[in-house]
Amino acid sequence: MSLRIFSDISAPEATMQLLREGTAPHELLLSRTQATSCLEQALTDPQLYLAEVAFGQPDPEAILLAKDLRWIQISSSSITRYDTPPFRHWALERGIAVCNSAAVYAEACADHTLAFMLAQSRLLPESLTTRAPGGSDAWHRIRGNSVPLRGKSVLIVGYGAIGARLVELLRPFEMNITAVRRSIRGDEPVPVVPVSRFDEALERGWDHVVDILPDSGETVRFFSAERFARMKRGTVFYNIGRGSTVDQAALLDALRSGGILAAWLDVTEPEPLPEHHPLLSQPNCFITPHVAGGHRDESVTLVRHFLANLGRFDRGEPLKNRVL
Amino acid sequence: MSLRIFSDISAPEATMQLLREGTAPHELLLSRTQATSCLEQALTDPQLYLAEVAFGQPDPEAILLAKDLRWIQISSSSITRYDTPPFRHWALERGIAVCNSAAVYAEACADHTLAFMLAQSRLLPESLTTRAPGGSDAWHRIRGNSVPLRGKSVLIVGYGAIGARLVELLRPFEMNITAVRRSIRGDEPVPVVPVSRFDEALERGWDHVVDILPDSGETVRFFSAERFARMKRGTVFYNIGRGSTVDQAALLDALRSGGILAAWLDVTEPEPLPEHHPLLSQPNCFITPHVAGGHRDESVTLVRHFLANLGRFDRGEPLKNRVL
Repeated sequence: MSLRIFSDISAPEATMQLLREGTAPHELLLSRTQATSCLEQALTDPQLYLAEVAFGQPDPEAILLAKDLRWIQISSSSITRYDTPPFRHWALERGIAVCNSAAVYAEACADHTLAFMLAQSRLLPESLTTRAPGGSDAWHRIRGNSVPLRGKSVLIVGYGAIGARLVELLRPFEMNITAVRRSIRGDEPVPVVPVSRFDEALERGWDHVVDILPDSGETVRFFSAERFARMKRGTVFYNIGRGSTVDQAALLDALRSGGILAAWLDVTEPEPLPEHHPLLSQPNCFITPHVAGGHRDESVTLVRHFLANLGRFDRGEPLKNRVL
Repeated sequence: MSLRIFSDISAPEATMQLLREGTAPHELLLSRTQATSCLEQALTDPQLYLAEVAFGQPDPEAILLAKDLRWIQISSSSITRYDTPPFRHWALERGIAVCNSAAVYAEACADHTLAFMLAQSRLLPESLTTRAPGGSDAWHRIRGNSVPLRGKSVLIVGYGAIGARLVELLRPFEMNITAVRRSIRGDEPVPVVPVSRFDEALERGWDHVVDILPDSGETVRFFSAERFARMKRGTVFYNIGRGSTVDQAALLDALRSGGILAAWLDVTEPEPLPEHHPLLSQPNCFITPHVAGGHRDESVTLVRHFLANLGRFDRGEPLKNRVL
């Protein structure tokens, strides 16, 4: 049966061509208004109201009016804009499948996290900017403060596609890994504790704490002053989830007081931080501008991910990365 | 049988205490002149001439005069100072075991190499210093130029303890790895080609070329203008071996012309490079000051490595990291 597929994604012509060819013989309705990021909102093209399938970042309000929709493929990892009680209720009641594209970004996000962990353990920000001669105090300090990752402990907070890939990448380091997850599935390759037991887990003391939490009502300022205080001195904190999950003033205090050793953030609130924000000049805080999920083949991988799901949808098979 | 053990290592008191306790009941002769690095030369303490075992960086000339020596444990990974025809001849003729301490530094060196590879693939030097707003040209450029490591190709030139550990760390990235080695043993976990077939291997085109060559007569300027020219555009070159193995003028040309994409060097010639050396200001060249092997537990690991070998020596078992 031929479907009408609405998409507001924007991508290089070769990728759009792949989308056109891959969706045939279905009818593809390309939006004249396009979303470039999950953080922006595109104006709604009325073609959405004709579609059974939507792919991209369609406006959540407009979606509620699209009577024929059966499946929405969100083009980001985050579904924050859609993760509201009215939207959940509507999707459940109407039996509409909602998928994210976590698989497209998980690999790059996990690479980015390990890049952070190794840059910290090898002190790259310092060692890339010094000509310290062999045997000098500065040279001994860099070597002496470098710490192999092997055998250290990691708490992964918010375990999903990114966390799963990160666990794979960390395998050769034989680390002591525990994950924290909202709903434990039982098939996780590492010990998992529910969010309700997070504080207890935190007490155990971790060399690395990795925040991969999404933005939702439950996660706002999840990493609070109290929780930073529970971390051991020497903990390195990473955020590749969402900026809203961290109390940034509390983080700054922990970094200034030596309560924790360092922080590596790919996300902040707001993004970017204003020019004179104190985290920007804090020497043990390292910030990248929300680029962890990005990679050269992002748009083509995104389209392939959608097309693979479209094949499953056509054959009545379970969809990948279904979140609602 | 009690041995006389000469050592010129210098380390924190707790580590020296470990050495004193671990060598008992043998007699430990601690040098009054100490080596701090394999690149320096300590004045020779005459106690060396009384010893059956030497641990540290004893002067190669003085060693030839030490008539009772049976085993030399070099405290570095490199044995450059000792790797000369007269020294090899002498060690062979007298049946003297020469060991390096590669195992002590391999883990940290492999971490450092992967830190370089991921910092490059995630463009950390650029992304850690920009506040590029989401959706801006700079932001799209960073995301678009980031490349996951998964599935890429790596040529490891100089395969030993560091290369073996690096192969383990790269395993989850499912990369296409080949190693180049002077003497192929047959137990390597990846395809290996002999140095004589290096140029042929280079022709195949590699995303990453990792130089872990030691300093020896055969390796001087091994990476020549001709060999950089054989690399494909897009190759990233890493040196964690020795600075002398690279023709630095040729490397600079390759980086300037776009013949290769970038270079990450932990070693140079000389070290450090003089203040206005052009590699220091070359935007796609990243340099750390010979710190790849360093780590917090370095001196204690070094002493433990020696003591474990001493146990083997006492029991007449094969020594670890024996190189001559």
